[in-house]
Amino acid sequence: MIAAANPPPRGFPEAEFAARTEKAQAAMAAAGLDALLLTTEPEVRYFTGFLTQFWQSPTRPWFLVVPAAGKPVAVIPTIGVDCMSRTWLDEIRSWSSPQPDDDGRTLLAATLTEVAGKAARIGILKGKETHLRMPLGDFEQLAWMLPDATFHDATAILRGLRMVKSADEIAKISYVCDVVSGAFEAAPQLFAAGQSDVEVFRRFKIECLTRGVDDVSYLVGGAGQGGYGDIISPPSGRALRAGDVLILDTGCLFDGYFCDFDRNFAIGRADDAVRRAYEVVWRATEAGLQAARPGATCAELFAAMQAVLEEGGAPRSPRGNDVGRMGHGLGMQLTEWPSHTPWDHTVLQEGMVLTLEPGMAFAEGKIMVHEENIVVRAGGAELLTRRAAPELPVI
Amino acid sequence: MIAAANPPPRGFPEAEFAARTEKAQAAMAAAGLDALLLTTEPEVRYFTGFLTQFWQSPTRPWFLVVPAAGKPVAVIPTIGVDCMSRTWLDEIRSWSSPQPDDDGRTLLAATLTEVAGKAARIGILKGKETHLRMPLGDFEQLAWMLPDATFHDATAILRGLRMVKSADEIAKISYVCDVVSGAFEAAPQLFAAGQSDVEVFRRFKIECLTRGVDDVSYLVGGAGQGGYGDIISPPSGRALRAGDVLILDTGCLFDGYFCDFDRNFAIGRADDAVRRAYEVVWRATEAGLQAARPGATCAELFAAMQAVLEEGGAPRSPRGNDVGRMGHGLGMQLTEWPSHTPWDHTVLQEGMVLTLEPGMAFAEGKIMVHEENIVVRAGGAELLTRRAAPELPVI
Repeated sequence: MIAAANPPPRGFPEAEFAARTEKAQAAMAAAGLDALLLTTEPEVRYFTGFLTQFWQSPTRPWFLVVPAAGKPVAVIPTIGVDCMSRTWLDEIRSWSSPQPDDDGRTLLAATLTEVAGKAARIGILKGKETHLRMPLGDFEQLAWMLPDATFHDATAILRGLRMVKSADEIAKISYVCDVVSGAFEAAPQLFAAGQSDVEVFRRFKIECLTRGVDDVSYLVGGAGQGGYGDIISPPSGRALRAGDVLILDTGCLFDGYFCDFDRNFAIGRADDAVRRAYEVVWRATEAGLQAARPGATCAELFAAMQAVLEEGGAPRSPRGNDVGRMGHGLGMQLTEWPSHTPWDHTVLQEGMVLTLEPGMAFAEGKIMVHEENIVVRAGGAELLTRRAAPELPVI
Repeated sequence: MIAAANPPPRGFPEAEFAARTEKAQAAMAAAGLDALLLTTEPEVRYFTGFLTQFWQSPTRPWFLVVPAAGKPVAVIPTIGVDCMSRTWLDEIRSWSSPQPDDDGRTLLAATLTEVAGKAARIGILKGKETHLRMPLGDFEQLAWMLPDATFHDATAILRGLRMVKSADEIAKISYVCDVVSGAFEAAPQLFAAGQSDVEVFRRFKIECLTRGVDDVSYLVGGAGQGGYGDIISPPSGRALRAGDVLILDTGCLFDGYFCDFDRNFAIGRADDAVRRAYEVVWRATEAGLQAARPGATCAELFAAMQAVLEEGGAPRSPRGNDVGRMGHGLGMQLTEWPSHTPWDHTVLQEGMVLTLEPGMAFAEGKIMVHEENIVVRAGGAELLTRRAAPELPVI
């Protein structure tokens, strides 16, 4: 087993959760909210440190109430109490879940009333890239049980907080980016013509785990003669052939934080069109790296990359690929706010962790996508991934 | 790399999707529903075969409309069209997502109106173990755009369909159970005192991948002197010591279908209390295996296991552990309906795939949990996992 180089410590000091909570409470006060009601894994973890894969079971709802002042209050199934009690929280209310009729609803309603009053203005996530992780029928009943309370969209508060990462968060993302960069650099030893794509995926996952990631949560890719057309499918059993272009795009985890980047490889040989497309998206990424400075907007970042793609022959559509954007935020989730699109005018700030992901269609049914991960520093972009080679690697 | 023994074919014949759709449509007719609107990964996949890890990105909503007759209609982001076009669907409507203002809402509203009429009765999932995977604000606007349509809970329809597995579904689950059984049997070669639990988890993941699973999507566990108290936490870095009891509980995937079972190991030695607790939960599982026949209910299955636990010294609470139940359905999700609890009177049918998961507290802060996976056949339970040893294995 290859020893992973210096992983950063797991978890966070309590001060980090206190600071996140205080910032949220300041924003809540400005928005006139008496409490936040959070139901989704990243949000509950953001304010508590509660890290478990148990969220994959859809059976039980989990709730976190952030009051106007003081620590958050967890309202969770009994099975999670032991794990939650190792976080910084003081107050954990629990019920034995699943329950047929009242799966935590009454306990949650009582907690909200106690914490925020009968006529509470309660913030929930209703905006882009969010969902409510509890049965919709239960939420309707909760609202009925709290007739004087009102629910308001608090997406902007969470978005504003989570987009800017702390030093400890950046250290985790940086580590997983570095480990996976090493796995990609080992590709010539891992992949070869004749291998099925099932084996390609499996070997890459094992390589990442061996090098020190906690999980290979996300691995998609594609391969095709002279280029690929689809980058979100699982492997099909097709064997790699000379003349294929292979892309692997992975989101690996360390301590609950993601990398998200891809690498392209030519198998045996690459034709000129493929080499040129690779070179164009690589240069577009360079333009993104130059543009990603505090004060610039996501739309400007998009424009910088798009200019290179268009000059390189990409169609003059507002988007060079079907991905709909050229990168996004990154952290506790594989993709986070913001999006590099012509319409996202989010201003870049120090501490934002972003992907740069220019892509272009270069022939009928063939696309080329490239991706790196960066953190925005005072002086500009700092790469978290080890920069891909400027020319398409041939295996 | 260990060659995996005879994996079943990937995907399903088109007839399987047609049969699922027709059964849904019969149930929709009985419930007076003009269409189903589905937003979650398992449901979209159930009716289409659309399999991608891309759902891990929360950015984009995905919609499937099941009409009263004919094939479902996909309303999805452009990035998924290539992958969706390889399914049995004829009609795929797409928009370039993400979009700032109208992320598919207008296209979805138009599709629903066209397929089901202005005054459509639309089934959505609002019940236990479900959620709506689209921004709540977008759903509210959709309802506003369809003022004559009404939304109704269709959870019972999906629950009824998905609980009973087809032969091809069972073959996938059986395969992944068999592969992971082999990985657990290799434990004496993988784990040893002195290893950190981080390395235990990593070695086990690599072993499962090497043997042929597609992904180790879920791995939780715990270890402690004379027993463990928490079974949902990630590894902490603690080293295994002689006298520890280690539990690993894993959900691995093959072609989108899960296993979900655990194994217990004593490190070096085990005291009598631990051995006895293991033997009790093992015998409770035997009782579950005997009781799991068509016509029996989940509540009866629970009672059969609970009787053994109580006789073996478990507290006389309605539940022997904090899990809240003693097993559940299994398939496209790690946990599915039904639940083995005193209040779930679901009648077992041939083709249901279930976990049997008795657990008991046997000392202060120490629990013992055991789990096997079965399919209900005409003659009774058929094990999909290779039965755990009747005595606690010592490594």
